Amino acid sequence: MTTQPRWQTKITEASAEGVRIRGYELSDLSRNVDFAEVFYLLTVGELPSPAAGRALNALMISACDRGITPSSAITRTVASCGSPLQAAVAAGILTFGDVQGGVGIEMGNGLLRAMAGLEGPVTVDAPQAREAAESFVEHYVQRGERIPGYGQPLHPEGDPRARRLIEYAFELGVDGNALAVGLAAEAVIAERKGRPIPMNVDGAIACVAIDIGMPPDIIRAINFVARAAGLSAHALEELETAKGFRLLATDDEVSYQGAPARAVTRSA
Amino acid sequence: MTTQPRWQTKITEASAEGVRIRGYELSDLSRNVDFAEVFYLLTVGELPSPAAGRALNALMISACDRGITPSSAITRTVASCGSPLQAAVAAGILTFGDVQGGVGIEMGNGLLRAMAGLEGPVTVDAPQAREAAESFVEHYVQRGERIPGYGQPLHPEGDPRARRLIEYAFELGVDGNALAVGLAAEAVIAERKGRPIPMNVDGAIACVAIDIGMPPDIIRAINFVARAAGLSAHALEELETAKGFRLLATDDEVSYQGAPARAVTRSA
Amino acid sequence: MTTQPRWQTKITEASAEGVRIRGYELSDLSRNVDFAEVFYLLTVGELPSPAAGRALNALMISACDRGITPSSAITRTVASCGSPLQAAVAAGILTFGDVQGGVGIEMGNGLLRAMAGLEGPVTVDAPQAREAAESFVEHYVQRGERIPGYGQPLHPEGDPRARRLIEYAFELGVDGNALAVGLAAEAVIAERKGRPIPMNVDGAIACVAIDIGMPPDIIRAINFVARAAGLSAHALEELETAKGFRLLATDDEVSYQGAPARAVTRSA
Amino acid sequence: MTTQPRWQTKITEASAEGVRIRGYELSDLSRNVDFAEVFYLLTVGELPSPAAGRALNALMISACDRGITPSSAITRTVASCGSPLQAAVAAGILTFGDVQGGVGIEMGNGLLRAMAGLEGPVTVDAPQAREAAESFVEHYVQRGERIPGYGQPLHPEGDPRARRLIEYAFELGVDGNALAVGLAAEAVIAERKGRPIPMNVDGAIACVAIDIGMPPDIIRAINFVARAAGLSAHALEELETAKGFRLLATDDEVSYQGAPARAVTRSA
Repeated sequence: MTTQPRWQTKITEASAEGVRIRGYELSDLSRNVDFAEVFYLLTVGELPSPAAGRALNALMISACDRGITPSSAITRTVASCGSPLQAAVAAGILTFGDVQGGVGIEMGNGLLRAMAGLEGPVTVDAPQAREAAESFVEHYVQRGERIPGYGQPLHPEGDPRARRLIEYAFELGVDGNALAVGLAAEAVIAERKGRPIPMNVDGAIACVAIDIGMPPDIIRAINFVARAAGLSAHALEELETAKGFRLLATDDEVSYQGAPARAVTRSA
Repeated sequence: MTTQPRWQTKITEASAEGVRIRGYELSDLSRNVDFAEVFYLLTVGELPSPAAGRALNALMISACDRGITPSSAITRTVASCGSPLQAAVAAGILTFGDVQGGVGIEMGNGLLRAMAGLEGPVTVDAPQAREAAESFVEHYVQRGERIPGYGQPLHPEGDPRARRLIEYAFELGVDGNALAVGLAAEAVIAERKGRPIPMNVDGAIACVAIDIGMPPDIIRAINFVARAAGLSAHALEELETAKGFRLLATDDEVSYQGAPARAVTRSA
Repeated sequence: MTTQPRWQTKITEASAEGVRIRGYELSDLSRNVDFAEVFYLLTVGELPSPAAGRALNALMISACDRGITPSSAITRTVASCGSPLQAAVAAGILTFGDVQGGVGIEMGNGLLRAMAGLEGPVTVDAPQAREAAESFVEHYVQRGERIPGYGQPLHPEGDPRARRLIEYAFELGVDGNALAVGLAAEAVIAERKGRPIPMNVDGAIACVAIDIGMPPDIIRAINFVARAAGLSAHALEELETAKGFRLLATDDEVSYQGAPARAVTRSA
Repeated sequence: MTTQPRWQTKITEASAEGVRIRGYELSDLSRNVDFAEVFYLLTVGELPSPAAGRALNALMISACDRGITPSSAITRTVASCGSPLQAAVAAGILTFGDVQGGVGIEMGNGLLRAMAGLEGPVTVDAPQAREAAESFVEHYVQRGERIPGYGQPLHPEGDPRARRLIEYAFELGVDGNALAVGLAAEAVIAERKGRPIPMNVDGAIACVAIDIGMPPDIIRAINFVARAAGLSAHALEELETAKGFRLLATDDEVSYQGAPARAVTRSA
């Protein structure tokens, strides 16, 4: 009787000859493609086209660091507490939950739902793009939810990082229906809300990721794999400059609102 | 009275205009360099030369996945338990401690110690390289410790991944004193141990990282930032194929060696 | 202008006089109640009755360790890789996701839904308990989902740990509608499935937790706070006996099923 | 040929009959001892005396929550980002590194070193206690390091939490040489520094832990296992009150000090 092997994978084969990722030998990959393309290969299963590879490289660079954010503040604090580098970065990665890093997955799934009825490629001006965009927006308006991927408190007129990324995607020719519908949705949202709420950089990352063939579940990974690079830098910088552990809250920033002082009225 | 800003960083500036990493705008970086080069920029502070950039790209690809290993087995198990992607990958990253992922740092520090006396660049055949190599090896022999970066149970004649990476580093012209001393140490070790114990791939990654200007502390980050890509792929594959949570140990693999059955002789 | 304090909490107040948890001073608590009761106080907001306190103590002891399981195997492996104790235990805690540690929450929510129509306390034999049990079971049968909290491959006749915990809950007099409905469901399930699938220990923990007034969301915390104690012991034992890092998969346990060997056909 | 079982443990045995921790059945433990005593049993291997059990219960209550601290601020932030409870608490646990939670281990090891020469029990006033205290203090003074376990910025005249815990330990009769030497060191430190720097609560926890027979390595676990209870409460409270993810740093709190704006001067 054949028992199923305990571990089965289609990703990587390690043997005496070396390591092959989806069939490609490491040295062959090292000499001919770059890390973003290998990330695509690992997750999607095939190497991307050169243009899609440049696009993913751009997505990762757009996501790799944003200064002092919840994730980097946490990483720096854990490092300041004397936990090693891998623990500091792991703690920062744990912030990529449904609220922060998960926006892209929600938008990706929303776009795929809306795009399902499209019969072929559409441009942003096409009526079918407008229709799909309305369907996309309506889904969230009906539920009273924020439309994922739009709006940026710092940039009410438009997130410059988003504009530049979208521009580059069009230049590379990797734009597809996700970008078409996602951008068409800007007009729909402006009409609904009475003011423009342009696509932000996380929305742009989601659209481009879908258009280069990366399923929505991978979008969160694009964000935190790239961010692991920035977090490592923040942890190392904190260790060079550390003066004891960081207090994230000083006494004057904390307000206790609970039960007043009282005594336990029974014994163990 | 000026108070020190709570957070100070030299890495990234985020403003209404966008995000600049070490002064470079994200879109400028996206169009002109690749992710490995941005990782170098984040951690070291300047862009690498094109050759050093290709070398770091090769290091990251060499480290990004190795099949079913402690880290990927852990990531897959956490994913199978219904914890989300960021938690599964964070758990895998926590394995990059002093024994597994920290070998590079120990070797890097050991090489820097041994190289301190070198007055300029040396080649692997130079007497000064031999001398530094003896000093490097002696440090560990005296302490009865394993020499970090050498030996690979699967590849007693030499780890092919290490050979190819070293070869590529020489082709790129990024080889320097760390590789010279590290490779000279192979002969020293063979004499000491009576059999060859060639450099393994983690040792090769450490030597090349030092030679392209990345301090030893960053080596662990090279390993786990790259591995975050592979771990993400493993977590996603596990979710596609999962049949409930993984038992990492079946009953027949566990042996209880502790106290025999007994009763508590007092009450709470 | 009054700004909202950045951090507001009703749990604990720390001042020059000391620390008060929900108004109670630490030393007062230390002398008069035990840790499980303080866990209840922290999460629910008030001290439990002595009987509920004994019950929670029993739940935590039932959950604190189960030998070599996914969580302890992961903790031991991370410890063997030279990551410190807090990282090893944190990694194990990450396994308490929706599949493993989340069963209790699902069952807790399911029971609360089913109990909503009950007008007062019921016993397991009461017709209203039977009715609520049918509603509880139906919810999962309709969705084709497993009924959370029942069944244990090792104990087809009944999980002895569950029986003993349930017995103790009745002795303490903390049994309530969750246990009544949960136990009435055993008969419903036996009829539906044609064979008995008794409540398992995780189901018993969930029922008792609900009956002592702990909302379902806390059940996962009962499990992993208690388990942190066991995981710490496993990490420390691994460090005493460690022989290098643990391989969770040996070569003969891994089967590569992916693309065959191939060469990259383009250059960077 | 007998192969070594892959997993060997002396802690817990899980079988069809149930689960036994160090030989004791779970239900027997639940009825007769409390969670702190089971934590002792798990880590040390035997049940503590009733007095030592009360002492450990007090240590855990002293450590279980301290309001808004680095660990709880991190846990709350991760929860606010939509990562689940186990991830939020795991992130908080990662702060228990060498700087914050590791103080106890360092002090424990320092005391054991200093106590090694003592021939039997000593009281705080004994000359041998004074001698050992001088040796303990000297170790750190020579290295220019802070003496672990003393001083508390909020409580220059003495940390009331420490005083109460020490008092309770003496009442329970669990005081031993660690407390004797640790308290004798207060006089030594006052002479050396010219002002009193009394033992703080983390120092008190370390002394009592040593005196009840828990090795220094376990002290960090006492702290974070207990704290897991408080962190769970903080995560749940954050979720009840959350208004989007927490920004740990606002723009006005961040100062960029790095390279000025510049352009990339080469292409990919």
